[in-house]
Amino acid sequence: MSSTYGEHLKLSIFGQSHSPAIGMCLDGIPAGLPVDMEALLAFLRRRAPGQNEYSTSRKEEDIPEFLSGIVEGHTCGAPISAVIYNRNTRSKDYSNLLDTPRPGHADYAAQVKYKGFQDVAGGGHFSGRLTAPLCIAGGLCKQWLEAMGITIAAKIDSIGGVADELLDPVSPELSRIGKDFPVVNPAAGEAMRQKITEAKARKDSVGGIVSCYVTGLPSGWGDPMFGGMESRIAQIVYGIPAVKGLEFGAGFQVAAMTGSENNDAFVIAQGKIQTATNHSGGILGGITNAMPLTFRTAFKPTPSIARKQQSVHYSTCTPCPLEIQGRHDPCIVPRAVPVVEAAAAIALFDSYLCANL
Amino acid sequence: MSSTYGEHLKLSIFGQSHSPAIGMCLDGIPAGLPVDMEALLAFLRRRAPGQNEYSTSRKEEDIPEFLSGIVEGHTCGAPISAVIYNRNTRSKDYSNLLDTPRPGHADYAAQVKYKGFQDVAGGGHFSGRLTAPLCIAGGLCKQWLEAMGITIAAKIDSIGGVADELLDPVSPELSRIGKDFPVVNPAAGEAMRQKITEAKARKDSVGGIVSCYVTGLPSGWGDPMFGGMESRIAQIVYGIPAVKGLEFGAGFQVAAMTGSENNDAFVIAQGKIQTATNHSGGILGGITNAMPLTFRTAFKPTPSIARKQQSVHYSTCTPCPLEIQGRHDPCIVPRAVPVVEAAAAIALFDSYLCANL
Amino acid sequence: MSSTYGEHLKLSIFGQSHSPAIGMCLDGIPAGLPVDMEALLAFLRRRAPGQNEYSTSRKEEDIPEFLSGIVEGHTCGAPISAVIYNRNTRSKDYSNLLDTPRPGHADYAAQVKYKGFQDVAGGGHFSGRLTAPLCIAGGLCKQWLEAMGITIAAKIDSIGGVADELLDPVSPELSRIGKDFPVVNPAAGEAMRQKITEAKARKDSVGGIVSCYVTGLPSGWGDPMFGGMESRIAQIVYGIPAVKGLEFGAGFQVAAMTGSENNDAFVIAQGKIQTATNHSGGILGGITNAMPLTFRTAFKPTPSIARKQQSVHYSTCTPCPLEIQGRHDPCIVPRAVPVVEAAAAIALFDSYLCANL
Amino acid sequence: MSSTYGEHLKLSIFGQSHSPAIGMCLDGIPAGLPVDMEALLAFLRRRAPGQNEYSTSRKEEDIPEFLSGIVEGHTCGAPISAVIYNRNTRSKDYSNLLDTPRPGHADYAAQVKYKGFQDVAGGGHFSGRLTAPLCIAGGLCKQWLEAMGITIAAKIDSIGGVADELLDPVSPELSRIGKDFPVVNPAAGEAMRQKITEAKARKDSVGGIVSCYVTGLPSGWGDPMFGGMESRIAQIVYGIPAVKGLEFGAGFQVAAMTGSENNDAFVIAQGKIQTATNHSGGILGGITNAMPLTFRTAFKPTPSIARKQQSVHYSTCTPCPLEIQGRHDPCIVPRAVPVVEAAAAIALFDSYLCANL
Repeated sequence: MSSTYGEHLKLSIFGQSHSPAIGMCLDGIPAGLPVDMEALLAFLRRRAPGQNEYSTSRKEEDIPEFLSGIVEGHTCGAPISAVIYNRNTRSKDYSNLLDTPRPGHADYAAQVKYKGFQDVAGGGHFSGRLTAPLCIAGGLCKQWLEAMGITIAAKIDSIGGVADELLDPVSPELSRIGKDFPVVNPAAGEAMRQKITEAKARKDSVGGIVSCYVTGLPSGWGDPMFGGMESRIAQIVYGIPAVKGLEFGAGFQVAAMTGSENNDAFVIAQGKIQTATNHSGGILGGITNAMPLTFRTAFKPTPSIARKQQSVHYSTCTPCPLEIQGRHDPCIVPRAVPVVEAAAAIALFDSYLCANL
Repeated sequence: MSSTYGEHLKLSIFGQSHSPAIGMCLDGIPAGLPVDMEALLAFLRRRAPGQNEYSTSRKEEDIPEFLSGIVEGHTCGAPISAVIYNRNTRSKDYSNLLDTPRPGHADYAAQVKYKGFQDVAGGGHFSGRLTAPLCIAGGLCKQWLEAMGITIAAKIDSIGGVADELLDPVSPELSRIGKDFPVVNPAAGEAMRQKITEAKARKDSVGGIVSCYVTGLPSGWGDPMFGGMESRIAQIVYGIPAVKGLEFGAGFQVAAMTGSENNDAFVIAQGKIQTATNHSGGILGGITNAMPLTFRTAFKPTPSIARKQQSVHYSTCTPCPLEIQGRHDPCIVPRAVPVVEAAAAIALFDSYLCANL
Repeated sequence: MSSTYGEHLKLSIFGQSHSPAIGMCLDGIPAGLPVDMEALLAFLRRRAPGQNEYSTSRKEEDIPEFLSGIVEGHTCGAPISAVIYNRNTRSKDYSNLLDTPRPGHADYAAQVKYKGFQDVAGGGHFSGRLTAPLCIAGGLCKQWLEAMGITIAAKIDSIGGVADELLDPVSPELSRIGKDFPVVNPAAGEAMRQKITEAKARKDSVGGIVSCYVTGLPSGWGDPMFGGMESRIAQIVYGIPAVKGLEFGAGFQVAAMTGSENNDAFVIAQGKIQTATNHSGGILGGITNAMPLTFRTAFKPTPSIARKQQSVHYSTCTPCPLEIQGRHDPCIVPRAVPVVEAAAAIALFDSYLCANL
Repeated sequence: MSSTYGEHLKLSIFGQSHSPAIGMCLDGIPAGLPVDMEALLAFLRRRAPGQNEYSTSRKEEDIPEFLSGIVEGHTCGAPISAVIYNRNTRSKDYSNLLDTPRPGHADYAAQVKYKGFQDVAGGGHFSGRLTAPLCIAGGLCKQWLEAMGITIAAKIDSIGGVADELLDPVSPELSRIGKDFPVVNPAAGEAMRQKITEAKARKDSVGGIVSCYVTGLPSGWGDPMFGGMESRIAQIVYGIPAVKGLEFGAGFQVAAMTGSENNDAFVIAQGKIQTATNHSGGILGGITNAMPLTFRTAFKPTPSIARKQQSVHYSTCTPCPLEIQGRHDPCIVPRAVPVVEAAAAIALFDSYLCANL
C-alpha cells in the first residue's frame, strides 16, 4: 500500500514537491499496447499548474520523461517508468513550517509519524503535485481503455456551493461537458469562476464536487467483497489529496429511498439486458453490469490559504498565528477533473487485467 | 483482493449463503493477544439475524467455531480461523433465479462473470450473510484496539429519511448511543422503526446511513496516498454489501465550504496539540492526527423486496415480472451498525500493525 | 505472506497439528472448473499418514470437508474452502516441550518470536501436517492443469544417500515412475526402504531428494525478475517444512560448466522450436520456454528422532538431555512427493492466471 | 510480483539494458534512517562493469541519481527513488536478435510472451544490468542492518569447478574474505581467475557458486510457511539473472544425512542459547534462530558467448548458426557477489519491518 496501487498492475508513485523529481513506475502492463504521446501530453496539460488565474502561479511544464517500458511507440512488457524534474522550486518558502503545522495539511500527522524527518517543503510527498505522475499512469490506461470502446469523462458538479446540471446516468451525453471549464451549463461555470475569484480576493479557497462517468464498459469487471469496483476505485480516489467523500450511483440519496424506488428494473433495450434506471452506478455486487459507471467525489477547499490562521509551535507547545507563504490554487477542483479520470482509468484497467474473461 | 483484505494482516472470507459453512481466516496477528469469547459472542449477536420484527425470519445462531490460532484464550501467532455452519438453508427458494436476475442484486453481473456457474442460492457469496465472518475478525480486532484505549462505536444516522441527532465530532459522547436501537435521540429511533414497519407492510424496504466514531487513536497511523486511512477504510467498507457512499469528517459538506471555514485550527488543549474543530474526521494526509476518526456510510434499501418487480429472462432475452421468495430484512441498517464497527476495527488494527511506531 | 501464497489466486492455510482442524481457503479461482473429488481423494491418500511402516503411526483419514466454493461439481467463482478435523490428537505428548526446544525444529525460534504463546503441541502451525491443506489446493490445481494437457509428476531421487536413476530432462518418461514407491529403478527403491528401516531401528531418520517434472507447458508463463517461475516455485516449495535446497534444471551443476556446454541450443523438432538439451529446466529469464520444467528439492531428515538429544531449559538456561515422545516418520520423503507436486501445481496455476495470454 | 518485491517494503525495479535509464523505487522505509552515500557508492563499485579484464568492456559509471525520499542525509518516509542513466549504449549490436533467439537467454520465451514487442537490445529488462538498481536498494538496506549490528558478506565458493575453502558456519570469520577477489584462499582465487581467462580466450564463459553469511541476526525474524526466511530470500535471489540453484545451511547435503547428524544440538554458550552445529543455516521453521544465516547460490555461465552457436529463425522456422556481438563478461560470478548481498539485505530488512518484535 502507501504509494503503491494495484492488484495485477503495480503502480508506484514517488517524489516530493521539491525533490529533484517526481515520477511513477507502472509494472504489469501487457506488451504491444500503443502509446499516443501527443494525446498523453494533452491529457497532462489539463492538470498542469500555472495555466490561468485560478491556479497556482508555480509554473512547471510537467513534461514527463519516459525512462523505460516503451519501445517505438508500444509497451514492451517491461515496467513503464517516467519522471518529471522539479525545476521551479522555492523551498525556503516553507522553513517556518518546521515548527508550526499548517491547518488542513498533513504537517502535524507527518511530524508525529516521521519524527521530524519528513520533507516539509511544499508538503513533501503529500503535495497535490504528486497527482502529475498519477495522471501519467492514468492517461496511459485511459488510452488503452478508449481503444476498447470505453470512455471516461469527469466534470465539475459544484464549486463553492454553485451546482452544475447533472448528466443522465442511463445515457450520459458526455459531449455536453465543456472543454475549457468542464461543466454542462456554461452559466453555472461562470458562477463557479466568480466564486473562485472572490475566494482568491479574500485570501481564501473553495471546494467542490467532481462527478465521473464511464461508458462502454462490459459486464463482469470487478470482484466480490474487497475487490469490488467500489473498493478498487475508492482506494485510489481517496489517494488523491483533498478527497473527503465518494459515492457511487445515487450514493447518499439511496439512504432515503425505498427498495422499490432504488432497485434498477431490468429491461431489454436494443436486444440487450439493461436497467431502466441506474441508481447502482453500473456496479452490482462489486461487479460492472454494462450500465454507465458513475461516481461523485467531494474535494475540500485548498487548505493553503494566505489569510492568517491559528496554529501552534511544536517546540514550546504554545499557540501561534500562521501566515502561509508559497503559491497555491484558490480552488483545485478544475485541475482535479483529469486526476479523477486518471484514478478511475487505473482502477478500471487493473480490473480488466484481473478479469480473465 | 476479492475476498482477501489487509496489508500486514491478511483476512480471507469464504462461504456462500447456502454453502455448508461460512467462515474466515485471519493471518498475521501477533501472538499473546487475549481473546474474550463472551465479548465476541455479544458483539456477534448485535448482527445476528432473526432477532426482531425488523430482520429476516431466517434464524441462525451464528456461533463461530474456532478451528485454529487460539490456544488457552490467547492468540498463538498462527492464522486464526473460524467457521459458522449454515443450518437453516432453504435453497429451493431460489431456483427461479437461474434464469431471471433480481433487480438491485449481483445476479446479472455474476451471471456474466461466472458464466452461469455462480451459486445463486441466497445470493451465494454476495449475501449479506458473509458479514458474519467479517464480524468475527472485526470483533477480535475491536477487542485488541480497546485494550489499547481505542473505542469504536457506530450508530444509525438516518433510516428512510428520518434523521437522528449527530454527535459532536470533537468530543463524541459515545455513551449517548442507545443499546437496543443505536441512535442518540429515542424519538428519532421510534420514527425510524415506524418507517421500517411501514416499508415491510408495503412489501418494500428502506435504506439509511450509519456513522462511525473512533476515539483514543494516536497520531501517525495510516500512510500517504493509497495507504491513507481513508483508502484503507474505504476498501473494506465498500466490501460490505449495499454500501453506496462513504464520507470522512465533514464529507460532502466540505465541497461548499471555504478553506477558512473547513481548516481545523490547531490549539493546545490539556497540554496537547489538538484541533478546535474536526472537519477532517481525524485524518490529514491519510494519517491519523489523534482527533476522533469519523466517517458516514450510506446503505441502500434491501434489494430483496416481496412486491412484484420487472426483470428479464436470460434464456429468451424477454421481459418478465419477478416475485422474490426467501426471507429478508426490510431494513438492514440496524444490523449493519456492528458490521461497520467491524470493518473499521480491521482497517485500524491493520494500520496499527503497519505503523511501526 | 506468512501462510498466504499467490498473486492472482490467494491461498491461505490455517491450523495447527493439534488444533480442532486444519484447512485452506483458495480465492481467485475462475468459475466453471470441474472438480473430480475421487481423483482429489486419491491424490491426498498419497500424502496421508499411517499407511505403512515408514510413516508416523498417527492415523488420520484426512478426508477434506469442502465448506464453500464448489457447487454441483464445479467451482462457482467464490473462495473454495475445506477443512480436515484433527481427530487423533495426543497433545500431552508434548508438555515437556514448553521449556525445552527440540533440535532441528522451529521450537526455539518460535519461542522467541511468539513469546511463549505459540502452540507447542505437535509443532503447532509448523507441523508437516499443514501440508495436507496444501495438497487439497494443489490437488485441485493439478486437475485443472491436467485438463490443459499439463502433467506434473515428482519422484524420489535419493534417500539416505541411495540414488535413483534420473529421467531424461528433454523427454522425461513419467510412466516409468513407480506407483507404490515413486522411483524409476525398483532396486534403488528397495535399497532406500532398507535405509529407512535401518534408521527407524536406530531411532534415527534419513533425508532425501525429490525431483519434479512438468510436461506440456506452453511458453510464456512466469514474469521477469521476482515474478519468475523459479521465484514463484521457490516461495511455495520453501514453505514445505524440511526443505533446505532447491535447484532448477541442471541446478548446482551449472556452476562447473562452460557457457558452450550449458547453453541449450535451439533446434526445430516436429515443426516447433525446442532446445536440444534442457539444462535450463524449461525456464529462461523466469519464463517458461515449452520444454519440460524440472526442479529438485532437498529434504532434511525428520528432526523428530526417538534417540536422546542435547537441548537446554529456557527457564534455567542450562543444558538438558531430551527424549522426544510422539509419533513420527523415520523419513518424510515418500510422503513429500505429492506435496512437491501440489506446490508446483499451485505456483503454475497462479502463473497461468497471471499470464493473460 | 514481476519486478516488484517485498511485503512491508515495496521495491520496484525498472529499466532495460538500452532504455534511457534504469532505476528503482523503494517504498515503506521508515523515516530518519541515515544514508551514507560514500559507502553506497563503494558498494555499487563492487558490481560496476568494465573494471577489469574479467568483465564486460561496456563502461558505465553507474552513479545513481536520487530523485526522492532522502532529505539532508536521512530517509524522510517518502518512497526513495534513484535512476542511473544508460549512456554507453550500442543498440545496433542486437538487431539480428529480432528473428533469432540467443541460447541460454530469455529471448525466445520473451518473444512468445510479449509477441515480438519486447525490447531485444541487450536483453532488455532481462539484462544483468538491472542488478544495479537492486544494489542501490540492497546497499541501503545493508547499511541500515549494519547499524543494528548485522553483517552480510558474500564470497565466491567456486568458479568453473575450482573450489575455495568454506567458512565455519557457526563462527564465520568474515574478515578472511579477500577484498579485490572475494575468496578465502588466494591460491584458489588465482586458479579461478585463470579459469576465467581461459574461457575468455576460448570465446566461452564459466559459472560458479556464491555463498552468503549473515551474522548478528536476532531470533524471530521470518514467518511460518510461505513467509519463511528461505521463501523470502529465495524469491529475491531467484530474481537475479543466471541463478539456477539455492540452498540454505547444509543444503543438498542434508539429503544424505541422518537426523542425529543433521539436527543442531542446543547448547549454552556465553550465557545464551545457541546450536553446536549450524546445518540449518540459522533458520528453523522459516524463522531466524540467532545463528549465522548461510546460503549458497549457483550461477550459470554467462549465456552470451562469442563462439558460434546453434539457433533458429522465428520467421522461417529453420535452423541457423548464431554469432553474438556485444560486450559480455566471461564470468559474472565476481560481480554477482555484491548482488547476492544486496538481495539478502532487502529480504532481511523487509523481514525486520514485518517482525513487529
